[in-house]
Amino acid sequence: MPQAQSPTSRQSINLAQKASLIDQRWSPRVVAEMNEYQFKVVRIEGEFIWHSHLETDEAFLVIEGNLRIDFRHGSLYVGPGELYVVPRGVEHRTAAEGEAKLLLIEPRGVLNTGHEGGERTAKNDVWI
Amino acid sequence: MPQAQSPTSRQSINLAQKASLIDQRWSPRVVAEMNEYQFKVVRIEGEFIWHSHLETDEAFLVIEGNLRIDFRHGSLYVGPGELYVVPRGVEHRTAAEGEAKLLLIEPRGVLNTGHEGGERTAKNDVWI
Repeated sequence: MPQAQSPTSRQSINLAQKASLIDQRWSPRVVAEMNEYQFKVVRIEGEFIWHSHLETDEAFLVIEGNLRIDFRHGSLYVGPGELYVVPRGVEHRTAAEGEAKLLLIEPRGVLNTGHEGGERTAKNDVWI
Repeated sequence: MPQAQSPTSRQSINLAQKASLIDQRWSPRVVAEMNEYQFKVVRIEGEFIWHSHLETDEAFLVIEGNLRIDFRHGSLYVGPGELYVVPRGVEHRTAAEGEAKLLLIEPRGVLNTGHEGGERTAKNDVWI
């Protein structure tokens, strides 16, 4: 499994280009690692399921489009070039009205559906 | 010290706007935390000093401009929307011919000059 890029690879990672290679929505793909953390790109459209991650915060950086994050008591929008960190344990639901391309940053091993499971759980640790 | 944003703050972070608030170059400013990691924005121009971080990888995401990362055996360029992770222990020097605005991601407590010290060591853990 690839670790952090080696300096001999000497290739920067274009996030929009990597995201455009993914053939289905809601399927995060790993593009790089930093220590025990992973950088994942994902294409989304529509609404995900409510979930939380009890053991970790989760960072979202929008590459293209607009991300809506719903909480039980309100929502926020994250636009291109914007960052938001969902604190651990906070129930949330990601959504996008058109397609959005996102960068997720979280520890290796975190599932997209948290502890909810179900059919929308994506295969983990798939690189692109 | 602020932890990861609380959901009650409900404010996404515009990285370019945050970087534009910094009044001097080579002075990283923290904009968010994710677990024990920090997201820092920085404005750079010219060349930094050679250094390495023995205990951690270091991620660079370019917001505006072009980042050059020099290694002892070559260089690479990282453009807007691109990511590169410098592996732990690898000597590197960041540079930009015009101004570049960057997002750094690394564990809390990492100094910009690694173990080199000296006058270019920025005050750590300053938020903006």
